[in-house]
This record gives sequence, C-alpha cells and structure tokens, in this order.
Amino acid sequence: MPRTPLTIPPHLLFPGRCLDCSLRGFLFANFSSLRSINTAAAARVLPSQIPTRRRTSHNNTSPATFSNPRQPYLTDAIRAHQARKMAPQLNGYFQQVDALADAFIERLRQAVAIPSISADPARRPDVVRMAKFLESELIKLGAQVELRELGRQPGSDVNLPPVVLARYGNDKNKRTILVYGHYDVQPAEKSDGWDTEPFELTVMPDGRMCGRGATDDKGPVLGWLNAIQAHQAAGIDFPVNLLMCFEGMEEYGSEGLDDLIYEEAKKFFADTDAVCISDNYWLGTERPCLTYGLRGCNYYNIEISGPGADLHSGVFGGTVEEPMTDLVRILSSLVDTNGKIQIPGIYEQVAPVTPEEEGLYDDISFNMETLYESLGSKTTIYDDKKKTLMARWRFPSLSIHGIEGAFSGAGAKTVIPAKVIGKFSIRTVPNMDIEKTNEAVSRYVEAVFKSLGSKNTMKVYPQHTGMWWVASPNHWNFTAAAKAIERVWGVKPDFTREGGSIPVTLTFEKATGKNVLLLPMGSSTDGAHSINEKLDKRNYIEGIKLLGAYLHYVAEEPME
Amino acid sequence: MPRTPLTIPPHLLFPGRCLDCSLRGFLFANFSSLRSINTAAAARVLPSQIPTRRRTSHNNTSPATFSNPRQPYLTDAIRAHQARKMAPQLNGYFQQVDALADAFIERLRQAVAIPSISADPARRPDVVRMAKFLESELIKLGAQVELRELGRQPGSDVNLPPVVLARYGNDKNKRTILVYGHYDVQPAEKSDGWDTEPFELTVMPDGRMCGRGATDDKGPVLGWLNAIQAHQAAGIDFPVNLLMCFEGMEEYGSEGLDDLIYEEAKKFFADTDAVCISDNYWLGTERPCLTYGLRGCNYYNIEISGPGADLHSGVFGGTVEEPMTDLVRILSSLVDTNGKIQIPGIYEQVAPVTPEEEGLYDDISFNMETLYESLGSKTTIYDDKKKTLMARWRFPSLSIHGIEGAFSGAGAKTVIPAKVIGKFSIRTVPNMDIEKTNEAVSRYVEAVFKSLGSKNTMKVYPQHTGMWWVASPNHWNFTAAAKAIERVWGVKPDFTREGGSIPVTLTFEKATGKNVLLLPMGSSTDGAHSINEKLDKRNYIEGIKLLGAYLHYVAEEPME
Repeated sequence: MPRTPLTIPPHLLFPGRCLDCSLRGFLFANFSSLRSINTAAAARVLPSQIPTRRRTSHNNTSPATFSNPRQPYLTDAIRAHQARKMAPQLNGYFQQVDALADAFIERLRQAVAIPSISADPARRPDVVRMAKFLESELIKLGAQVELRELGRQPGSDVNLPPVVLARYGNDKNKRTILVYGHYDVQPAEKSDGWDTEPFELTVMPDGRMCGRGATDDKGPVLGWLNAIQAHQAAGIDFPVNLLMCFEGMEEYGSEGLDDLIYEEAKKFFADTDAVCISDNYWLGTERPCLTYGLRGCNYYNIEISGPGADLHSGVFGGTVEEPMTDLVRILSSLVDTNGKIQIPGIYEQVAPVTPEEEGLYDDISFNMETLYESLGSKTTIYDDKKKTLMARWRFPSLSIHGIEGAFSGAGAKTVIPAKVIGKFSIRTVPNMDIEKTNEAVSRYVEAVFKSLGSKNTMKVYPQHTGMWWVASPNHWNFTAAAKAIERVWGVKPDFTREGGSIPVTLTFEKATGKNVLLLPMGSSTDGAHSINEKLDKRNYIEGIKLLGAYLHYVAEEPME
Repeated sequence: MPRTPLTIPPHLLFPGRCLDCSLRGFLFANFSSLRSINTAAAARVLPSQIPTRRRTSHNNTSPATFSNPRQPYLTDAIRAHQARKMAPQLNGYFQQVDALADAFIERLRQAVAIPSISADPARRPDVVRMAKFLESELIKLGAQVELRELGRQPGSDVNLPPVVLARYGNDKNKRTILVYGHYDVQPAEKSDGWDTEPFELTVMPDGRMCGRGATDDKGPVLGWLNAIQAHQAAGIDFPVNLLMCFEGMEEYGSEGLDDLIYEEAKKFFADTDAVCISDNYWLGTERPCLTYGLRGCNYYNIEISGPGADLHSGVFGGTVEEPMTDLVRILSSLVDTNGKIQIPGIYEQVAPVTPEEEGLYDDISFNMETLYESLGSKTTIYDDKKKTLMARWRFPSLSIHGIEGAFSGAGAKTVIPAKVIGKFSIRTVPNMDIEKTNEAVSRYVEAVFKSLGSKNTMKVYPQHTGMWWVASPNHWNFTAAAKAIERVWGVKPDFTREGGSIPVTLTFEKATGKNVLLLPMGSSTDGAHSINEKLDKRNYIEGIKLLGAYLHYVAEEPME
C-alpha cells in the first residue's frame, strides 16, 4: 500500500537541525513561526534535558518546497488562536515538550530496545526488565512506585510480570486521574518481514519511528512520564494527582490484572475521579478521536469428533462420516457473504438506531478510499461510510477464524481428521446479553447439526466472552479531553466507537465506578501487532502535549 | 483398541525355546508336529546360519494351554496336504526359512536400525547408508547390483538417494519377475508416543516386531533377499530370474522414479514377464489377500483471497467480505454427511456394478466389528460389509482435509484470514477420467462461488492427480500367487482392491506393459506411518515363504 506523506511540522522532526537539506519533499509551508516558538522553548531547557546529540543552528528561515498540497495539521493561525484560550500555562508546557523531543525519543528508544514479549515465557526476564526500567524512570521523576507481583503464571513455571503501580502527587485539592497502559509487546522477529530491526527504534526521514511496541503501547505509556518531565522543566504545577497502572501481560490476556484492579479499587485507586486509557488508535491518519464505545466478543468452539484417530482418506474415504464434512456444513450456516448473521435471536437484541444517532456519522473523519487503502482491496460489504461505520461500531458481526485439528500446512495431505474444532466469534453490541447470545448460538448450532443426521459427536461452547462497553461522550472526562484535542491539534475530535475489545476498560469502569475515556495517541496506519509497527513522531510529540493538556482541562472541567 | 491375540505357531515365535513358560495364553493346539517339522529343518541348517543366540532344547512336547479358541492359521492337516501337492521342492525351502528365522529377524533389525527417513534432508546420509546395506547384502547373495543415482532433489541442496537395481539369475529358459519395494521410511521419534525406540527392532512376546519400517517396507524388501538365501541354504534351484527395484524416496513422492522406470523399461527391465509389488496390507488380520485394484486421487485447492493482509475481526468484522465465509460455503456444498458427492458429472463416470461383481464381496474376510475396532468408533456410513467394501474399492469418495491460511492453533485468535486455501480430494475409480473430473469440479465450484455474489477472488485447481488402477485377477501372475498363498497359508486368498493409491503400480504397468500384482506381507493392524509400527513375526516368516512359493508357482503357471 503506498504511504501518504505525513504532514509534520519540521520542528517536530529535527529540532535544531537543518531542514532544507534533509527534509525537502516531506514538509509544508508556514513553519518559520513554528521554529521561533521552538527556539523560544529551547532557551528554557535545563542543561540535563538537552539531548546528547550535538545541536546545530541554522539561519535559513525560508519555507521548504513541498510536493504535498495538503494543509499542515497545525497552522500558525491555530497556534495563535490556542495561545489566547484558557489554560494559558500550557504554552510553557508545550514549549518544553518540543524542546525535550529528542530526549523523549531517546526514552522510547531505550524502551523499545527491551524485547518485553509477554507471550514467550523465555522472554519473561525482559518483561520484568521493562517494568524495572519504568520504575527507575518514575522514581527519577519523583513518583511513588510499587512493582506489584501477581504470582505464578497459570499453567507455566514462570512468574507473571509485575504490575507497575505509581502515584505522582497527593494533593487533596486536586482531582485524581487514573491512567492505564501496558509495557509488554507482541512477538517480533526481523525475519517476519520487518524492514528494520524490530527492537531498535528507527526514525525514518518521513517521521515514522519504527519498532515493536512504539505505538502499542510503550509510546503512550512513556507519554505520561514525558508529560510529568515537561511540566517539571517548564516549572508548571502538575494539575492533578496522577495514578498510573501499567501492566506487562496485556498482549497475553492480561492474566491476573482484573483481580488486582478489583482489589485496589478501594485502596490504591480509591481517590480516582476519572480514568484515561491510551491504548487505541485514531480512526484514520488526520483527525484525533475520543473513543466512547467498544464491541464485546463471544468466542465459540464447535468440536466434532468421530473416529478414534486420524484416518487415511484412501482407505476410509466413502465409508466413514467425516467430522470435517459436518463442520464445514455448520460453519457455512452461521453467516453469509454479506456478513448477515444467520443465527436467530442475535439481531433481536440489538439496540435500535435512533434518529439522533443517524446524524452522528456524517461528520466523522473517515472515507472509503482510506479504508480500501488500509484493506488493500475493495472487498467491503458496503460502499458507503455511514453503513460501514455502523457495521463496525454498533452492529454485531460474526467471523470464522479457522479450524483446529485439520490439515493446515502447505502442500497435500490425504488425511481424514478425526476431531476438528471450528472457531468463530461474534462481536457484540448494546443491548446484547452474553448468556442470551450463548443460548442462541447453542440452540442454532445444535439444530443444524441434528439436521445433518450425523453419527459423529458435536459440542458447541463459548471459549471466552467479553462484554461490550459504551460510555457517555458528554461526561466531563470527555468534554475536557475534547478541549485538549482542540487546543493541541486545532480541530474538534471525532467521537468514535471501536469494533474491537479492550476488556480492561470495562473492568476499570466496574471496579472504580468512574467514567473511562479512551484517548489514543497513534493513528490507524501504525500497524500494532504487525510487521513494521511504527508511531509517527508527530503523534508521539503532539500526543505528549495532548496527555498533559488533557490533565489541565480535566482538572478544571465542571463536573455535572 | 484391544489387540486380538495372534494365532501364531510357536515354532515361529521362539524356535528351540521353551514354549510353556513364556507363551502361555498366546498360542494354540496342534503344535507338536509343527515342532517336529521345525526340528527336522533345523538339522539341516548350515553352521553359519545358526543365530548367535544360544539355543535351548526342551523335552516337553505336550501342547500349551490356550485361552483363544480360534484355529491356528496352519493346521497339521493343511501342512500335510500341501506337502503332497505340486512344487514339492518347496518343502525344503520352507524348512530353511524356519531354520533361518532368527537370521532373517537379525537382518531386519539391522535394516530398522538405519533411520532412512526420506522426508528429512538431514537424514539423507542414512537413506544412502540403507541403499548401501542392501547393495552389500545382495552382493553377498550373488546378485548383480547397481546403485542408480537420480541427481539433485528438486528445490533442495541434497542428492536424491539412489535406486537399488539388482538382478539375480540370467537364465533365458526361466521367466523373469520384476519386484519393487522401498527402503526409506516415514519419520519417527520416541516422543511421538512410541512404546519402544522406533529405530530398534523390538520383538514382543506376542510376536509383534516393533520398529519404523518393519512392515513399510523393509520387511517385504528383505523378504526377497531372504527368499534367495533360503533357496541357497536348501540347495534348491531358484525358479526365476529376479529383477529388483528398491527405491529410497517412496515416502516423499517417489521423486525421480517414474523417469527411471520408463527409461529402463526396454533396458534393465526389458525381459520382465510380470511384476510383483509387496507394499500393501491384508484387509484384516487373518486372511492373506491379493490386490488387483487401487483408487486414484485427484487433490484440489480452492483458493479465496480478499484483503491484502490478515485483519482484526474487531476492527473489520461486519464491514468486509471474509474469504473464510465464502470458503466454508463452497466446502459445504461438495459432499454430504453420508459421503454422497454433490458435484454433477462424477457418479455418471463410474462403471456400473455387474451382477457378477455383486457376488464377489460375500466371501471377503472382512467384518464390520473389526472395522469398528480399527476406527475406534461406529461412525461408518453403512452398517453392512458389502456396501462398505464397495464404497472403499469401487465408488469415488470426497474428503475435505483442511484449510491453509486460517487460524489452526489451540486457543483463540480473532483473525480474519486474508487468503485461505481449502484442500479436498476425490478418490477416483473406473471409468473416471482425470480431465473430465477436473472439469466437473471447476464448473461446479465456480458456479457455487458465483451464487454467493462475493467480491473476493476464487481459484480452484488440481494440486495433483493420480489415476486409478485395476488389473485382471485372472491373469497367470495372480493365479500363481493364489496357489502360493494356498500352499503357505492353507486358505484361498481374498481378492481385494484398495481405497488408496500406489502410483508406482500404474507406472510399472504402463512402462513394461506387463501385469502387476500386489502381494502384501503385513496385516491391517501393522500401523504403517503410525506410532508403534510393527510386523508380526508370523507375517514376516510365512511371508518369506510366500514370496519364494510365489516365484515357484509363477515360474510354472500356464500363460493364457
């Protein structure tokens, strides 16, 4: 898929370096006044905060020449407008973030260099090393930190990595914001197809910072630490008490975390006023968003067994009832090519679309062309934006993921698999009930199997279930974040829901009883979990500004 | 599955050893006179042929007590009857086979100890070592041997193992019989679940000789060598010129063999009068068989692709047309639970059942209870023997083997696979045509896919095809073999077909233009390709007698 050149202010890319010579063709106009802000900020940097790389000065203030006609994401006019608005102390904070950009990238480089892969028990020491890295950085910043042990990983001979619990500030006159992130990452090997070493953060000329965990979720986690540091550098009072909960098993099912959250709800998290999670992504690449809803996920197994062991299809083909034949017949009855779920009792549970909701989709920064690009095909069910967004956010879907026990390799194998397990999941939405959905699935699958008249044995059961989540986007936690986005990015955010699930969101809501906000840092093209995962420098640096700005606005926002 | 006690004459199990003490419960009556035959034979053993294990003598000639009421496979009466029949010189040969039994087992032990796994290029030196072992044994027996190199293995950096070509006897007045076998084996590791070390032949008290390759196909290959040796020991003229073709890549697609067979058809194989292959199995465990037919196999891929890469089902579920949804719909349309192929144009090609054929199945030694036992379930399509045998031998079948590209592991993965390849095969029978069948499959699958109205891309194509084979069981090659079976085993053989494929059969038939006979040594419970592969000592030793007897009868049988 061709990459769209990013619209990044030059000072974010190479503070203090010659822009004309290295960045021609990637940047945009109107950067001279941005540079002057940057220079002013740099003047207030403490010696310890100056990145070790030698800074160069440059007198050329004429704009570079650009091939991309698009507008920059922050114009001078927006910056000037924002500087006149409320929370004027933020200006000094923003300047420090710019000035410390290299130091923040260096911190991310150190974090990416630790291969904290939670799925691989052999990498567990690296996961623990990453927890200790965070602990040490937090202590340097003056936070109180605890590494909370979770004991042995079930079914394994290694311990779970600790949860990093931290508090920065303990002022009864301030609000307390609880933030969550995770410091573990998905597996990655250069040989998977990466263009760069996955555990060496590589900053590209176009601003992509490639490395495993850059966007998911080390960038956002470090964002909170960087926000503290920039406040200290600017000499600005931190606006809230910040509680931090960073886990090391998110990419492997967050084992042990739920219990800890419920246990600490009335202890470590007791004074929480609102929760903010930065672990998802913008809907596209150009407009920031706030996320107020997630679909749930019920994952099912259909297990069919017949003979005692795999059979040779030459010897037994035509004489035995084959489990695979039954399984594909059942799987084919679940959903059609247009995504319509065939199981009675599913759509009946879905909340009706209100006329008010109808209007919500038109303004969302999302278009089909971008979707086709990120898909790499035009094989969408709907050709229009509104139907597509509704299908992703507010209607259930059913996907068939695969089959366990059948031949799955390349080439040819003439086996009759003795026992096969079909895997599918239903993404659930308001007002679907987990149990009702399970019952509908069981009833339907059993009826289809019965209609086959097979002698084989069939079992259908949920492998795991997770509830959907919807918060009120009118809550002060969201309105404060919206103001912060407008302040930093100069645009109103999209209010989005997500098709996927972040189960910890619901846990925090239930355990603390407080509003939970999803405030993403990265964009839709970051490729979390994929090869060449990246976080754009633009999203990292402006994202740090945003996290800090959010804390200022949420400290002042009237509670309804 | 419970093992049926084998009906093995005691002298075959432990020649010269005390029977009462070690074998009680496994054997049967009427063995005293068998022992006397054995003793007579032993008296003529040359010193070099006496196994190194110290023989013990025992004076107790009273029959052992047996829990199994079944008849022995050879009664005294049968032995006596056979001794009066044609080819009287066979008696001396049989006696030498019995006398040399330990030496023959030792030879098999040496062969099993060489892990000649053709699928693993790292084991290639062992495969070559096995070829050299055969060469050396054949030279000792006075055969002319060539190790024929086949060059580099395609797509690999190792050479193919050589084909062992050998000739024993070059008398224009004798018929020439070409025999085929393979000296490579399937992979095996103790950790796969073997009860014994797979590459150490372990002889169990019940006569099972466990080890990888024991039955597939080292036992039968050595059978021909042992037959030569026992003739020499008995001082009996070898009845035919024997051409041998032993390959080392059978378990990995017989790469390079077809070309060699066609090339040598008018050279090394030029004087061939008939072909005999010992590389299949009895239908059950009690009655030997001659095999005159094999089904063919057309193996198909259905490839469906949509998005450019795998997608997250949370983010994209409900908005894209999923390749898996289309694939299971197509797969479900191919065959029903009762094995009925749904593709028009398949059954139309099948030769009709003649009244004469109808009668053939009744006498076959096969029963449903044994089938249920070997299946480990009662999930057969038919409850009666005749329909089951017809479904296995003379009707086509369709099996769905699996899906490449989808999630196939344990646990849960919420992926929408971008490209999936469904694998299925059709076992073909007379008079099906490969091309006609391919066309019927393509036409049908394309029509089903079109009916889905999907935006995804679908391709269907044969991955490989292999023709069915049927020979005339009335050919002199078969009638000679039937007489040999009756002579050795005291029963008329089952005339069987097989549901599976042995492609080299058809190659030999086409290349030489001569009749090909499949003359199995092992029984249906041998577990070729499985863990705990074994060859019963009974089947090995009596099988060696059978191969020699076959050569005598085929030398004399009138050619029609």
